[in-house]
Amino acid sequence: MPKVIAAFGEVMMRLQVPGYASLAQESHLNYSFSGTGVNIASALSRLGHTGYLISTLPDNPLGEAALAYLRKLGIHTGLVSRAGKYIGMYFLENGFGVRPGRVTYTDRLGSSFNTAGDDVYDFEAIADSIDLVHFCGITLAMNDQVRSQMKSLARAVKARGGKVVFDCNYRPSLWGTDRYAYARPHYEEMLSLADVVFMNEKDAMYILGLTTTKTERRAQLEELIPQAATKYDIKVAAGTHRSINGDNTHSLQGYIYTGGAFEYSKQLTFSVHDRIGAGDAYASGIIHGTLEGYDPKRTVEFAAAAGMLAHTVTGDTPTANEREIVQAMNEHMSDVER
Amino acid sequence: MPKVIAAFGEVMMRLQVPGYASLAQESHLNYSFSGTGVNIASALSRLGHTGYLISTLPDNPLGEAALAYLRKLGIHTGLVSRAGKYIGMYFLENGFGVRPGRVTYTDRLGSSFNTAGDDVYDFEAIADSIDLVHFCGITLAMNDQVRSQMKSLARAVKARGGKVVFDCNYRPSLWGTDRYAYARPHYEEMLSLADVVFMNEKDAMYILGLTTTKTERRAQLEELIPQAATKYDIKVAAGTHRSINGDNTHSLQGYIYTGGAFEYSKQLTFSVHDRIGAGDAYASGIIHGTLEGYDPKRTVEFAAAAGMLAHTVTGDTPTANEREIVQAMNEHMSDVER
Amino acid sequence: MPKVIAAFGEVMMRLQVPGYASLAQESHLNYSFSGTGVNIASALSRLGHTGYLISTLPDNPLGEAALAYLRKLGIHTGLVSRAGKYIGMYFLENGFGVRPGRVTYTDRLGSSFNTAGDDVYDFEAIADSIDLVHFCGITLAMNDQVRSQMKSLARAVKARGGKVVFDCNYRPSLWGTDRYAYARPHYEEMLSLADVVFMNEKDAMYILGLTTTKTERRAQLEELIPQAATKYDIKVAAGTHRSINGDNTHSLQGYIYTGGAFEYSKQLTFSVHDRIGAGDAYASGIIHGTLEGYDPKRTVEFAAAAGMLAHTVTGDTPTANEREIVQAMNEHMSDVER
Amino acid sequence: MPKVIAAFGEVMMRLQVPGYASLAQESHLNYSFSGTGVNIASALSRLGHTGYLISTLPDNPLGEAALAYLRKLGIHTGLVSRAGKYIGMYFLENGFGVRPGRVTYTDRLGSSFNTAGDDVYDFEAIADSIDLVHFCGITLAMNDQVRSQMKSLARAVKARGGKVVFDCNYRPSLWGTDRYAYARPHYEEMLSLADVVFMNEKDAMYILGLTTTKTERRAQLEELIPQAATKYDIKVAAGTHRSINGDNTHSLQGYIYTGGAFEYSKQLTFSVHDRIGAGDAYASGIIHGTLEGYDPKRTVEFAAAAGMLAHTVTGDTPTANEREIVQAMNEHMSDVER
Amino acid sequence: MPKVIAAFGEVMMRLQVPGYASLAQESHLNYSFSGTGVNIASALSRLGHTGYLISTLPDNPLGEAALAYLRKLGIHTGLVSRAGKYIGMYFLENGFGVRPGRVTYTDRLGSSFNTAGDDVYDFEAIADSIDLVHFCGITLAMNDQVRSQMKSLARAVKARGGKVVFDCNYRPSLWGTDRYAYARPHYEEMLSLADVVFMNEKDAMYILGLTTTKTERRAQLEELIPQAATKYDIKVAAGTHRSINGDNTHSLQGYIYTGGAFEYSKQLTFSVHDRIGAGDAYASGIIHGTLEGYDPKRTVEFAAAAGMLAHTVTGDTPTANEREIVQAMNEHMSDVER
Amino acid sequence: MPKVIAAFGEVMMRLQVPGYASLAQESHLNYSFSGTGVNIASALSRLGHTGYLISTLPDNPLGEAALAYLRKLGIHTGLVSRAGKYIGMYFLENGFGVRPGRVTYTDRLGSSFNTAGDDVYDFEAIADSIDLVHFCGITLAMNDQVRSQMKSLARAVKARGGKVVFDCNYRPSLWGTDRYAYARPHYEEMLSLADVVFMNEKDAMYILGLTTTKTERRAQLEELIPQAATKYDIKVAAGTHRSINGDNTHSLQGYIYTGGAFEYSKQLTFSVHDRIGAGDAYASGIIHGTLEGYDPKRTVEFAAAAGMLAHTVTGDTPTANEREIVQAMNEHMSDVER
Repeated sequence: MPKVIAAFGEVMMRLQVPGYASLAQESHLNYSFSGTGVNIASALSRLGHTGYLISTLPDNPLGEAALAYLRKLGIHTGLVSRAGKYIGMYFLENGFGVRPGRVTYTDRLGSSFNTAGDDVYDFEAIADSIDLVHFCGITLAMNDQVRSQMKSLARAVKARGGKVVFDCNYRPSLWGTDRYAYARPHYEEMLSLADVVFMNEKDAMYILGLTTTKTERRAQLEELIPQAATKYDIKVAAGTHRSINGDNTHSLQGYIYTGGAFEYSKQLTFSVHDRIGAGDAYASGIIHGTLEGYDPKRTVEFAAAAGMLAHTVTGDTPTANEREIVQAMNEHMSDVER
Repeated sequence: MPKVIAAFGEVMMRLQVPGYASLAQESHLNYSFSGTGVNIASALSRLGHTGYLISTLPDNPLGEAALAYLRKLGIHTGLVSRAGKYIGMYFLENGFGVRPGRVTYTDRLGSSFNTAGDDVYDFEAIADSIDLVHFCGITLAMNDQVRSQMKSLARAVKARGGKVVFDCNYRPSLWGTDRYAYARPHYEEMLSLADVVFMNEKDAMYILGLTTTKTERRAQLEELIPQAATKYDIKVAAGTHRSINGDNTHSLQGYIYTGGAFEYSKQLTFSVHDRIGAGDAYASGIIHGTLEGYDPKRTVEFAAAAGMLAHTVTGDTPTANEREIVQAMNEHMSDVER
Repeated sequence: MPKVIAAFGEVMMRLQVPGYASLAQESHLNYSFSGTGVNIASALSRLGHTGYLISTLPDNPLGEAALAYLRKLGIHTGLVSRAGKYIGMYFLENGFGVRPGRVTYTDRLGSSFNTAGDDVYDFEAIADSIDLVHFCGITLAMNDQVRSQMKSLARAVKARGGKVVFDCNYRPSLWGTDRYAYARPHYEEMLSLADVVFMNEKDAMYILGLTTTKTERRAQLEELIPQAATKYDIKVAAGTHRSINGDNTHSLQGYIYTGGAFEYSKQLTFSVHDRIGAGDAYASGIIHGTLEGYDPKRTVEFAAAAGMLAHTVTGDTPTANEREIVQAMNEHMSDVER
Repeated sequence: MPKVIAAFGEVMMRLQVPGYASLAQESHLNYSFSGTGVNIASALSRLGHTGYLISTLPDNPLGEAALAYLRKLGIHTGLVSRAGKYIGMYFLENGFGVRPGRVTYTDRLGSSFNTAGDDVYDFEAIADSIDLVHFCGITLAMNDQVRSQMKSLARAVKARGGKVVFDCNYRPSLWGTDRYAYARPHYEEMLSLADVVFMNEKDAMYILGLTTTKTERRAQLEELIPQAATKYDIKVAAGTHRSINGDNTHSLQGYIYTGGAFEYSKQLTFSVHDRIGAGDAYASGIIHGTLEGYDPKRTVEFAAAAGMLAHTVTGDTPTANEREIVQAMNEHMSDVER
Repeated sequence: MPKVIAAFGEVMMRLQVPGYASLAQESHLNYSFSGTGVNIASALSRLGHTGYLISTLPDNPLGEAALAYLRKLGIHTGLVSRAGKYIGMYFLENGFGVRPGRVTYTDRLGSSFNTAGDDVYDFEAIADSIDLVHFCGITLAMNDQVRSQMKSLARAVKARGGKVVFDCNYRPSLWGTDRYAYARPHYEEMLSLADVVFMNEKDAMYILGLTTTKTERRAQLEELIPQAATKYDIKVAAGTHRSINGDNTHSLQGYIYTGGAFEYSKQLTFSVHDRIGAGDAYASGIIHGTLEGYDPKRTVEFAAAAGMLAHTVTGDTPTANEREIVQAMNEHMSDVER
Repeated sequence: MPKVIAAFGEVMMRLQVPGYASLAQESHLNYSFSGTGVNIASALSRLGHTGYLISTLPDNPLGEAALAYLRKLGIHTGLVSRAGKYIGMYFLENGFGVRPGRVTYTDRLGSSFNTAGDDVYDFEAIADSIDLVHFCGITLAMNDQVRSQMKSLARAVKARGGKVVFDCNYRPSLWGTDRYAYARPHYEEMLSLADVVFMNEKDAMYILGLTTTKTERRAQLEELIPQAATKYDIKVAAGTHRSINGDNTHSLQGYIYTGGAFEYSKQLTFSVHDRIGAGDAYASGIIHGTLEGYDPKRTVEFAAAAGMLAHTVTGDTPTANEREIVQAMNEHMSDVER
């Protein structure tokens, strides 16, 4: 049964150099608008839910363009405020084969989202109207005001019996490479509010400070995730292991830990067209399976297929609907559909 | 020795989304004009023959554009009438890796070709001036008037000793998935008029109702094609088996059955750039080999190489000349030619 | 005070040749989605109202793309059904200076909108939820079923006290050049249901059969419009006179007739970038003025400025908001705004 | 009654910087193929005649592309030889307003056309099959071999009673600014072979050395053209006077001198989109009027309208058909045609 | 005799929506790098001088791209430091006719230039190596540190006998509309350091607080500029009066005040392609005339022609060389140059 | 320690068909400027050296564009003369998979570089100011004047103790396939002047006429290169062996022979985006290692990684800096860098 979900997060403008040239070589850019919250709200809309974004955009042509883009994605924009003056941006230069892509950010700390006062959001009213809310560790890295807003909204939703989802997504370039200790209490607060958490063994070790003597990542995962789940009372933990291969393909395997047991998806190997945002597609698949009551095995296979498909789609934001994901799960290679 | 050949069929406008985006994501299209008849006439022109298209186009800017495009392809347009109001179209969204491409048709039944009256064509005069005529099962699926025109032209050519070629090309989306019985008599009439037929074991089973206890497709082919050839007095039957691999490559093997014996090409595996129309390149290779008197082995290798090359070329319509196909048959990987 | 408005009409796919080349010269198209209903619903959304489109789109990639585009325009799509198989299209080749542009339609009669059964719409429920509904003479030209749907919806809205708007928009290419007599009763029925009507002296003469001995168009207008308004009980009649000048400029003057009196806007002369859809911008301005209770003089000046601005905007669909229209009314030439 | 015409001349590759940027600013080019002969053959094809080009192209991908482009234009390519290695090219940077456009040539003297031996053409056979042949002063500027080929073909056509057309088109950048004396005997020979000549008072003075005491160009024209016509037995002389205005418009007036009398077209003023090749459109109009037996007044008005329209069309090569030119002659400004 | 000049200022990334669409309508951008300092250094390089930019750029792909672009413009980049993290940006949506263009800035205060410490520049060494330095009021609006850097550099150049140029360029969106009093002392300090100043009567009134009873702008100018020149010991004051016309044309007249006398250029009216940066072209023309010792009349005509041409060129940065400007001064309309 | 290097060679304009279409199918080109000398000078600039190009360009818009492009690449253009009228060009059609790419040259023998008189260069002054000069066998193939210039410059540099680098690069399409004997003395003269030579066993056999009974290319190399090095007193010889695989990948292994010993890089296999110019990246790596005093093993690994990366970069000209090459040597596959 379709639910009403909301994601809290910043809208980023993505400015991509077409083809495989560098910014110094080209003079054209393609632009779109994304962000973890955007990706989650849009992906769940494609899966039949009502997806809101909770965010703030400037009241200028860039804000107008972002809003129009969100609507095009199928996102409900009634909870997007207009305030502040700027929008966060990143420039993307595609890699090719052995040459990695490059992402260059503009100064997002001054963005409308990151400078929005508490008065622009009515979290109690929002919490009344939604079944689930999604947060991301990128947002948690921004500043104290945003962190406080995240926690207020999470508490309001939890208090009403709504589901709280938190994706750890620790990004060293935002916190600093040695700021785990600084980040830890904020993470712990979000984890203790969350029902569904995206994390893996690295998050458990570096952010939460858990330790293991295992050296292989699967073994580490299986030792540490149950500890974290117990400690923070997490009902569902999920994540992926990715390998990057030399021939423009990636391999991906999803896991889910719930009810005290692990389930793994098949390891999927596939050609990659646009890597950014694929993690959000996986997360959306897990959330959808959880909302729909899929069993854990089906949930993780569905999520992994959703993640795989998102690598084949232009742009950060997943576009696949349920039929397409199920078709990809069944792995029949298809000719052109006509 | 170059021959005069003609293909009877509809000109379709192809509207392709550039890159790997969907129609909902993009705002630009590339367009061209193709169709089985277009592809055959153009491919045989590249191989040195004089290629006519027999068709009907509207007398409006779209018809003008289509005619200019056909001339650019090297097709003789003297047998293209101007009547009716519309042109058939299809929209193409490219797939990537595990994500299949999508084709969406407009309403082609109202097109100039599919509504052209018998008076727009002078089949007797046409038959007097050509050595070979090509038909396709897609055209046979259109309507009674078009079917009747096909058969009249085939009879006129046959009566004058010209060669009749028929490509079965049963497309369920046009006939309906359960309309084999409805289609069968039309197919049987075309088969009995044809000298050269493109078909495989599936056509024999589903369209013609032949049965086999074999389960492997090669075995089925070798049991059923001789039966069909005998029943309908087919001099040359040919076709391909295709496999779609997970890494953006396809594998293709051609067969030819003539003089009571099968010949197979090597199985070719290759990266795919534009899959549509490649079957017509294969067919053109078989026709060319037959017209030139190649032995069956050389004919089927030539046709398979032509089909393979057509997957590497932008657009539906094959562009390779004899030298390029022979070079591809010999399979030396080449560096840039300079 | 913002109102809830709805427009009933077909969504057309616009396929435009970029720059000033012809379809035969180019190989690229820009596409978007428009139509009178789309333009009205979008324009009124920009002016602060809630704008619904009542229409039907196919459940395929073209329908998805159209829906996404409507959302991007700010249109509420909750009243758009999914049925049928096709979408109406037109190709646009831009003119330049003395060379006129060309529009080529595909077969729109088979479109989802024009083949939608009565069961896809719940007109009573729709009428309950809206303040105003807009219809257009283009839709009236389609077929009996669509005409019947228009009238049913108009009656339902009128019965509940909502406002009915009808734009005569007689297009000879749709009805035939000599089919005024055939069209007349349908027009008369719509006129008698309408509160606000867009028409001019030509409509009065040709469609309604009114006669005048005057020869100048202003004089004809002032004689005939009051007759029509009386006969069909029209509260507001409005329209424009356009002149096309030799230097890529047009001149436009709007009129409004209400309460027994005419008001005219200034005659505006301006460079034209994209002429299509500008009439709908004018109509939206009249509707907005009427809904907001502007006096007739301000209403017609506002509408004319909205119409003028729409000629300077890319695409069929007006994009100006109230501030921009008011700025254009005040006619100060501005430098780049920064 | 449609005639068979041929034009002798070089095919040039046009490489145009899009928009209004310079070669140093941009990194993209649009390319097409043109040349006076191409323009004349194509324009007369649009007017219903059978248009051949007599030329030579290299047997490489550039030659293939040029041939395909000529076919697309509707030109018969059966008289185009394949020899030599190069194709002439020019780069075009568009001007804007007061900033003039720039044309930069590559070395055309080494082109296939300019190095083709006499053996690649069979002028006697060609002359047997055509009604009219067109030459241009640009070709006359190339080299002795090409000049000799021009004269041989002109004599062969004249000997059979075909019409010979010669466009003086003295281009100082090709001959040198002070090479009138060198050019004169070649011009005189072509003039004495020609029936229809394009020239104006400047050609008479500078190339032919005629003198006048008049200072105004119309007066000079009316004194000198009759002298030249008498001296070289020219049946029809025609040309234009052009003025370039400050606002991206040009003014054009055509003249024709035949039967001892001058006729002038209206002076036409119009916005200019693509100036190159417009002179060839005018020439085609004069040729068409002459072939069709229009009276001189209608001929010159038709030609001027054809010339005007060619300024509004993308590319060097005129694309207007008779209906469009007649519509432009009648000068009604039209709205979009739909 | 060519001089060594330097301009101190920020490099801005310009992100322009192609054509006439809005950011909400499009998905592509063209980008380039400009800024007043960039424009001045590049324009003077085209005029034969050695042009340095003194600025700071981030050490990331955007900084690399900016540096490559500056080199392409012919600017010497040896005085550009690499520090900080961001680059200032603005988005440009083109206007059309009566619809004004829009510029939207990102947060430039955090840019590398605006956060660069004093240690990144060695102003004494720079002053030793240049003949003239250019500053702009936009830079003066940034922050105290940048203002201090401007003044230090100006003093260092003045101390060595170099020329100091200051363009007032008061931009209300940067200072605030009511911050003239705040800005005044900074302006006064720069004016007292400057030899050549760009200003007009509005600057004199609003920034400097001078008063006049005149109402017409020419009269105001002639009363106030001499007062300012005397007060701040300005050797050359110059500027323009601009009028924006309704038909995509602007009118421009330049003035220069030097040696106690005014000279005016002709009033130039011309079509506008890209308005931004044209003021810098005018300034470069005045600087060039001053460096070359042109008389005031020639200087102001040269500068006005340079300014006019800059409106016809794509991008902010002037590209005309001396020959092209002189040709434009002489105002002969030219056909395509070939 | 950074050095001053110069490369002597022609600037070529590269005109590339976008995507995978042919020249006959497309109407757009991307252009850039390259050439072996350009590639070497640019690549070494990226590696921290000061890179000059010694060449000649026409004084026209194409020459301007080329110079601007060279500056953008970071090349010092102070040794580029302006003379002659033309620039060499080549058209590039990309291959796909089994279909090879095609390069078509224009007539480069008439280019500014190939017609430049000896007076445009001051080789003595140049030799005084540089540490190393690079030449290429393509230049050696041009004409006697260019060959003489090469040798003069090489002698001047050698006389001053500078390093001379020569890349054999025998291209049969330039010399003729049977002109080894004609070329030999020119090659021998360059080899005897050179310190660093790029060659492999084929050059030794075909150009120098050395013989071997070995059949495998590694064995041939190890027998012949020491002979050549001894005979011509070559301090460093280096080159690569390339294999072209069927799946759009190439394999590359570099060798270096110095101090009487061979070192080989790992065999690298990688996806290919743009093959042209990759050999120059390899050469630049060898030169850099030699200038920096890397040991032979590190030099050849560095050069092979540089060559590999150049296959992944758009355009002929290498763009990688030292950090990126070292990262590629270490072969860790990386995710997007952000």
